[in-house]
Amino acid sequence: MTLEEKLAQLVGFWVDQSDDAVAPMAGDMNTRGLYRDAVEHGIGHLTRVYGTRPIDPVERADWLWAEQRRLVAETRLGIPALVHEECLTGLAAWKAATFPTPLAWGAAFDPELVERVGAAIGRSMREVGVHQGLAPVLDVVRDPRWGRVDECIAEDPYVVGTIGTAYVRGLQQAGVHATLKHFAGYSASQAGRNHAPVHLGARELADVFLPPFEMAIREGGARSVMNSYTEIDGVPVAANAALLTGLLRDGWGFDGTVVSDYFAVAFLASMHAVAGSLGEAARLALEAGIDVELPTGDAYLALAEEVRAGRVPESLIDRSVLRVLGEKEELGLLDETFDEAPTTIDLDDAEHRMLARQLAAESVVLLSNDGVLPLAQPSQVAVIGPNADSAEALMGCYSFVNHVLAHHPGTPMGIEIPTVRAALADALGSAATVTYSQGADVEGDDRSGIAAAVASARDADVAVVVVGDRAGLFGRGTVGEGNDVESLELPGVQRQLVEAVVASGTPVVMVVVTGRPYAIDWAISGAARPAAVLQAFFPGEEGGTALADVISGAVSPSGHLPVSLPRSAGAQPFSYHHPILGGASEVTSADSTPVLPFGHGLSYTTFERSELTADAEVTAGDAFRASVRIRNTGDRAATDLVQLYARDLVGSVTRPVAQLLGYHRVALEPGEEAVVRFRVPTTRLAFSGVDLTRIVEPGAVELWVGPSCAERETETALEIVGAVHPVTVDDELLVAVEVDRMPARAVAQA
Amino acid sequence: MTLEEKLAQLVGFWVDQSDDAVAPMAGDMNTRGLYRDAVEHGIGHLTRVYGTRPIDPVERADWLWAEQRRLVAETRLGIPALVHEECLTGLAAWKAATFPTPLAWGAAFDPELVERVGAAIGRSMREVGVHQGLAPVLDVVRDPRWGRVDECIAEDPYVVGTIGTAYVRGLQQAGVHATLKHFAGYSASQAGRNHAPVHLGARELADVFLPPFEMAIREGGARSVMNSYTEIDGVPVAANAALLTGLLRDGWGFDGTVVSDYFAVAFLASMHAVAGSLGEAARLALEAGIDVELPTGDAYLALAEEVRAGRVPESLIDRSVLRVLGEKEELGLLDETFDEAPTTIDLDDAEHRMLARQLAAESVVLLSNDGVLPLAQPSQVAVIGPNADSAEALMGCYSFVNHVLAHHPGTPMGIEIPTVRAALADALGSAATVTYSQGADVEGDDRSGIAAAVASARDADVAVVVVGDRAGLFGRGTVGEGNDVESLELPGVQRQLVEAVVASGTPVVMVVVTGRPYAIDWAISGAARPAAVLQAFFPGEEGGTALADVISGAVSPSGHLPVSLPRSAGAQPFSYHHPILGGASEVTSADSTPVLPFGHGLSYTTFERSELTADAEVTAGDAFRASVRIRNTGDRAATDLVQLYARDLVGSVTRPVAQLLGYHRVALEPGEEAVVRFRVPTTRLAFSGVDLTRIVEPGAVELWVGPSCAERETETALEIVGAVHPVTVDDELLVAVEVDRMPARAVAQA
Repeated sequence: MTLEEKLAQLVGFWVDQSDDAVAPMAGDMNTRGLYRDAVEHGIGHLTRVYGTRPIDPVERADWLWAEQRRLVAETRLGIPALVHEECLTGLAAWKAATFPTPLAWGAAFDPELVERVGAAIGRSMREVGVHQGLAPVLDVVRDPRWGRVDECIAEDPYVVGTIGTAYVRGLQQAGVHATLKHFAGYSASQAGRNHAPVHLGARELADVFLPPFEMAIREGGARSVMNSYTEIDGVPVAANAALLTGLLRDGWGFDGTVVSDYFAVAFLASMHAVAGSLGEAARLALEAGIDVELPTGDAYLALAEEVRAGRVPESLIDRSVLRVLGEKEELGLLDETFDEAPTTIDLDDAEHRMLARQLAAESVVLLSNDGVLPLAQPSQVAVIGPNADSAEALMGCYSFVNHVLAHHPGTPMGIEIPTVRAALADALGSAATVTYSQGADVEGDDRSGIAAAVASARDADVAVVVVGDRAGLFGRGTVGEGNDVESLELPGVQRQLVEAVVASGTPVVMVVVTGRPYAIDWAISGAARPAAVLQAFFPGEEGGTALADVISGAVSPSGHLPVSLPRSAGAQPFSYHHPILGGASEVTSADSTPVLPFGHGLSYTTFERSELTADAEVTAGDAFRASVRIRNTGDRAATDLVQLYARDLVGSVTRPVAQLLGYHRVALEPGEEAVVRFRVPTTRLAFSGVDLTRIVEPGAVELWVGPSCAERETETALEIVGAVHPVTVDDELLVAVEVDRMPARAVAQA
Repeated sequence: MTLEEKLAQLVGFWVDQSDDAVAPMAGDMNTRGLYRDAVEHGIGHLTRVYGTRPIDPVERADWLWAEQRRLVAETRLGIPALVHEECLTGLAAWKAATFPTPLAWGAAFDPELVERVGAAIGRSMREVGVHQGLAPVLDVVRDPRWGRVDECIAEDPYVVGTIGTAYVRGLQQAGVHATLKHFAGYSASQAGRNHAPVHLGARELADVFLPPFEMAIREGGARSVMNSYTEIDGVPVAANAALLTGLLRDGWGFDGTVVSDYFAVAFLASMHAVAGSLGEAARLALEAGIDVELPTGDAYLALAEEVRAGRVPESLIDRSVLRVLGEKEELGLLDETFDEAPTTIDLDDAEHRMLARQLAAESVVLLSNDGVLPLAQPSQVAVIGPNADSAEALMGCYSFVNHVLAHHPGTPMGIEIPTVRAALADALGSAATVTYSQGADVEGDDRSGIAAAVASARDADVAVVVVGDRAGLFGRGTVGEGNDVESLELPGVQRQLVEAVVASGTPVVMVVVTGRPYAIDWAISGAARPAAVLQAFFPGEEGGTALADVISGAVSPSGHLPVSLPRSAGAQPFSYHHPILGGASEVTSADSTPVLPFGHGLSYTTFERSELTADAEVTAGDAFRASVRIRNTGDRAATDLVQLYARDLVGSVTRPVAQLLGYHRVALEPGEEAVVRFRVPTTRLAFSGVDLTRIVEPGAVELWVGPSCAERETETALEIVGAVHPVTVDDELLVAVEVDRMPARAVAQA
């Protein structure tokens, strides 16, 4: 291979990048060079072939197949391109299914279902010739001010790890490579500002931010990793060999490819100023371990000059080229002939819609309820609010609708997205009259519509007020990439709208459809508050239907908060997963207690959790068993989330006051009970000791199960004994769960 | 020495600790044991002999001298106690002078004056038999939500280091040992919550938080260091041998004593849970390098059992005992006979008052001014606001008035503290009528007084509205230890008070007397805003006089912001001293730009800064020269703060976009000009490289001088050449400044 042919394999080319607004970070980047020139020596990746503008998948597949044939036939080496695409909430293509946003995956606490979603997404991608998906996002939430929280799964590393790994398994089952991002620490940026410096020590990085990546690689076999844009303690991750090579490859044995986040190599010069030129930026990134520059070769193509000047050894180029070619071989690309492009494509078939609806339904969190929910045969329902009759409102920032179609006004969405209003009218049927009044916009200070909304509520038995976010990027919308905030009040005048409708006297069901948790203490515990509050994190194309199912009572809510519901922006950052002094204490007047805790979520039935028992002792390094009895004590079938928490009472470094060890969804009929049995490797309690070695330490551990991290409904104790156990890559990471069911009749007889 | 005699030297005893409210963190600590039992084997420290309750200094000195004689005569070894006291804003004793709070020292940017203040404080302490003072606070401000910001000097490490070192020199000149606190990282606690976890990497710790301590030890010869309460990245500093011994003693050569912050050793068990018992907590702290437990021996006395059980080698006890005895010898204590207690004591003599007034006057920052200031012969002035006629309002949280007297209502303050109202009436003389209306309290939501205040303003030529904080501790007051906030709006209804008075149409001078910077964008740039805004950080006993001097025009303001004036609590943490992505950028909608930048401060005259020149090249490790011309272009004598900033354009790790290299106050007559010459060691641009070695790196540096960090009035460039220079403890740390004056007449002739 010539040097040019090698470098061509290390870069992408952004086909169709003709719209400035699509890539606001691109700046003066050379993303618009002539395509034919760019692929003269072949090309590593084709960038967002489907995800850049609305183009019919069949038409685009036809182009892509022809282009791959051309690369095989007309370039000297005949190597096809690897095609990558965004796929966080489904394949980011026109007419493709749009699933709930990852924060909703977290709220559902259902890795098995997320794996099926991942598999469905993967099948669609493979069908249209896409080989690698730029998901999942494994950043552990620490600060809801950050706009990308909607792309994240949870504030608990194990929840992120297990659900993220399930997505990886699903996607890769279909023959599409997952890309773990953003490795690592991105979500801890200063004050929640996108790309801002990350202030982290080595221990917190290792114990909070890295475990999801380790799990997705070791347990999920993830084939690609993307760097975080940020610096950690002064060193940009894109130039951090200790992370990208030392830990990832030498430590965890990862042998896939590392791709750069878009423009991240050039940012080493322009945004981090650790390089004086694009060539130097490329050298730093290549040395650190970034194999492929995305979206295009702004910096890596300058490596030709660096190699010729002797500043970069060609062996470093070869290291990455071999990885890229290895990936292409693994994907079967080197043997593909691209004979026949698909002529009928359905990226939103019945299975997609079923999965989208199920995940959305499982993710809705009932925050509060005075009994108004489920609705009892209302004759008139006033549907109100800026998110009540909006399809976009249900979509995350990486959905095709909000990411791309927003720049193509007038283009049809290409998929059915029933709004909450439409779905609710459908669910309630002809027995109920459903009126609609927008009341206010998501943003802005226009209160002129509030009076009409209040009037519509006065005439109704119940008002359903749907408020929240509008996802977008870089200043368009209220949440999403680049849309960071310094206040966690609901945007615009939406609080005023809700309060005005509450003041009408008609019971209010407030539905919050957002990409981040907001400071809605006034709605949960204020003097004049809604009768019930539902939280949905962008629930996707079937989100309206799922919300209608919950509101009407067809489905009992079973989602739980994957993030703390914050007090205020001024109380951030915060996580439930904190040592003693990370919470409220006598030495500070600033109470950090969230409005509602991690794990909270009500149901239409009641559950009793009892008889938590565990091994009295376990040797450090081994696994222990714990079991708990769960009973549906209400009169409706519903699903409980069994949450097993632990607290290591004394450690050689500070330990969290609560840590979710394991979790499991258990569906129970009225009166039914089950015993849930956990097998927990003690590595779940491992941490980086004083010398940063990861260890399991002997000592006393409290265990409990309850309806959230903040309440101990049944508890027991465990003693870890023996010597300090240094954790190795061969140690188990995962908790195993079994459920022994006992139907209601058997319960009655027992 | 017996083991008991040794341990006695490693602990304090809190005499007079009879009032729960004085030590709210004490909890169930044994601070009330019988004194005689506690000192049976001698005692290391006597804790806050003067600073616990209001007792006449002569009376207390008489007791102390007698007690020291008794210790010499009646304990077996005859070793006197080392007496320590708080002294942050002056000796914390009844009737002692109270100086401006450290944030005001920062605003004055005048190390020489702070050294004189330190010397005055030290003389008072020595006079009453106090040997060690628990100051200065060298924590670098990063988050104004934290309540202890008023105890800190600035958000710039060099300003903290130079001014803190000046204080140390002053105090120790008088024969009193300074205590550097809180070593290290305390001010970076999560969300500004007191004692909350500190998320810091090794580089930021080394480059931002440690330099002031290194400077105060190497340049100031500080004799004692106190630990930070907090953990850094999971390891509580009180148990961190790498910091307390490795860096402090082995790295910097410190050979004094390390004392614990109050209760910090016990907190290793109760608050950090890294120890299972007080004995284990004591072992961890002793091993790490804490020599003396303060305020009393809650944990260290348990070391007897630890030694006897073989868990702690007695040699570790001896290591600390030798340091304590060495300190007592150094202080002359081992030879003292305590024959004669002082019979007349004046802790607030004319020199104290002169220094207090000068430092207060230099610290007042004119934030905005439409020309209303200085007041032009008003005939009627409406003085308004909760801080206008309050002596307590002028005092920091470690002042005796707010720290101790608050618990003794009815006790006279013991010193003269003219309020702003009284001082202004005095300054304006009989030509002006001064009315007073409180308008509102500092805290609470009572607006009933606003109308009367507005009425008083309507009748006046000008209204002076004095708002701000009330310093206190742990829930008493709005700022101070434990008084952390999640909002940076002015407390209570003070903003509403100011806005109502502004709406009266009478020009308003808003005077903000606080312990932290607040988010007062509305007052600086709002549509209906005060005509001028003055910021005073608790200016002490002569603060009212100093403010009156500035308002009336007797003094031209010369203070500058030592901290950024924040946008909001939700934009924190922030510092001017940030890399590119720590500021506003295209990739975040959350603008971090402060309302007013670090270094900002107006004058009654105007200054022109020009002709910044510097050596074109300097070898890494050497020093370079830079000079700038400053001219008073207005018609009043005044003092400019010359601020020399730098930006290292490309570094091997990210570098700040602005760094204050050096600064100097220059007093100039109208028309006078001066050339200010800096000699800057390149170590001022040193940082911890990728491998954490502290280095000076070759490369291009921009230099500028301007009225704040945000404005380049004159600029030049510098190239650092040669090889990377590893910094050693023998390298210079300090910038030298010389001023060549050219009187107005000479300027005119030139």
